[in-house]
Amino acid sequence: MPPAPTLGIDLGGTKVESALVDASGRVLHSHRHPTDAERGPDRVVADIVACVEACLEAATARASAAGIGVAGQVDTEAGVVQTAPNLGWTDVPLRDRLEDALDLPVVVDNDVRAITWGVWSEGAGRGIDDLVVIFIGTGIGGGIVSNGELLEGRRGTAGELGHLPIVMGGRDCHCPNEGCWEAYAGGWAIAERMRDAVRRNPVAGSAIVDRAGSIAGITGRTVHAACEDGDPLAEQIVADTETAIGLGLTGIANALNPARIVLGGGVIEGRPAYVDAARRIVDERALAPAAQALDIVASDLGGRAGPVGAATMARHQTATAGRPSAS
Amino acid sequence: MPPAPTLGIDLGGTKVESALVDASGRVLHSHRHPTDAERGPDRVVADIVACVEACLEAATARASAAGIGVAGQVDTEAGVVQTAPNLGWTDVPLRDRLEDALDLPVVVDNDVRAITWGVWSEGAGRGIDDLVVIFIGTGIGGGIVSNGELLEGRRGTAGELGHLPIVMGGRDCHCPNEGCWEAYAGGWAIAERMRDAVRRNPVAGSAIVDRAGSIAGITGRTVHAACEDGDPLAEQIVADTETAIGLGLTGIANALNPARIVLGGGVIEGRPAYVDAARRIVDERALAPAAQALDIVASDLGGRAGPVGAATMARHQTATAGRPSAS
Repeated sequence: MPPAPTLGIDLGGTKVESALVDASGRVLHSHRHPTDAERGPDRVVADIVACVEACLEAATARASAAGIGVAGQVDTEAGVVQTAPNLGWTDVPLRDRLEDALDLPVVVDNDVRAITWGVWSEGAGRGIDDLVVIFIGTGIGGGIVSNGELLEGRRGTAGELGHLPIVMGGRDCHCPNEGCWEAYAGGWAIAERMRDAVRRNPVAGSAIVDRAGSIAGITGRTVHAACEDGDPLAEQIVADTETAIGLGLTGIANALNPARIVLGGGVIEGRPAYVDAARRIVDERALAPAAQALDIVASDLGGRAGPVGAATMARHQTATAGRPSAS
Repeated sequence: MPPAPTLGIDLGGTKVESALVDASGRVLHSHRHPTDAERGPDRVVADIVACVEACLEAATARASAAGIGVAGQVDTEAGVVQTAPNLGWTDVPLRDRLEDALDLPVVVDNDVRAITWGVWSEGAGRGIDDLVVIFIGTGIGGGIVSNGELLEGRRGTAGELGHLPIVMGGRDCHCPNEGCWEAYAGGWAIAERMRDAVRRNPVAGSAIVDRAGSIAGITGRTVHAACEDGDPLAEQIVADTETAIGLGLTGIANALNPARIVLGGGVIEGRPAYVDAARRIVDERALAPAAQALDIVASDLGGRAGPVGAATMARHQTATAGRPSAS
């Protein structure tokens, strides 16, 4: 009998997505449900449960466990979401809440650490024992596999690579520090840097403001679309973003000497050329043994990465615990 | 019968130091021998052998294995020194050379990765499963222990934390990149920043030039001594160094979530106050779960760190392979 499928849940600030995933990473059923983080953890938990029920409605197989990925810092041992800025949560015991509601074993982790399980097990990092997964969306999250183990750290937050500082005295980050990698290369920062550039240079920026409807309406997507169309101001922001992405990856290559870095998330999907640009910069700037050992590729899980990752995590963390490559 | 002692060798550009070390980390015999890297690998190997022979001359116990730490990138699996800038070496098969000459199993690794074995086994990181060791001397090297394993990376160079960039477009590093942590907080960089400050401000800098004999004579030690005496220019360089050390450690705390960071090396020994300053900055700037989990302390191995680390590495890598806490 093949192992039972597991349930993967991706929790964002405005929607929750769940999928029933079999042991080979195939999505059997999936469902999206809106949520509104501002109404507090009780309502969000109710939305998660409603989403899971809708996902499982048509399913013939039962899930053996559920995994959930949350953007924020999670104490994995305790199953507690310590801080999740886009949900406004502090110290929410999400595992206990969901185990009660779903009557399943539940594993809670940071969203990109959950995705790392999926990339390592079923995606572009399959079978790689020294792997770094970096997802650049609104923010930047990561997961580090080294010596064939996903690093946890003391409190389960290892892999917060977006908060490596790359500019001393630089732009304010959403964390207590300034100059973080995320504050230059994250989606929110790309948009913010574009807005600043438009304010400094309203004439050159007028086409971008027209495109976005307003300065406040500028997003990372606006920047990438304007760059495609040859807008010089957007081209400059994209060039600076390339440099920032490459610089962060150079440090990660030096510090961790991975065999592969897998890049994903909305910013990378919105402009896949960032992957080639990053590879060029790392080849040029990293220490020779680090650059020679390394391969930088795009994630191939697409939009499924969140729920597939969370489901894969649940499968490995509740059953065969350990390295996917051995399963 | 207690396990046989092992031999630890610390190879620098101007001297080699070897020590016979018992299984509890105690130095039984030690010896220093000058070397001159410019004469090439053959002569350096002969100097290493001479140093080891002098160290073992009076010993009653035999060594069961030897470890050697080299400042540079080492392919640990192949036992090859890939690049060692201060020795001028590229791809030197040091393990094979030394095994032939010493008739012992030999383990070769980066110097601070070797030290990490000593700190983890016998020093201020004893028994800590999520540990980062950082030695700030002329350059900055590191070793990362996570989930109870010393990370290797694909080619054995994981832990090169000195080459995390902290200043985009910043000062040239000795590596192919610019703005590296080492290019601000390493001993060579502290001296270089002081020399630049003196050139920009010869009047305020005259006391420091007098102290050092010349601008070229300024070292990290000069800067720390002048700062102790209240020299304002040196105080500024030290304050900037504190910021740089704290910033690098903040990123490392965020990325790896260690339970402890152990700081050592000549710069830290020359100004132990850097440890407290670093702790303050990390407390203020790191993500809350990372800061809360973390303890930052000074190494307590003193000048023995190099050879004791290399000997400890040899003991663990040739015999009981694995975590020191389990031995």
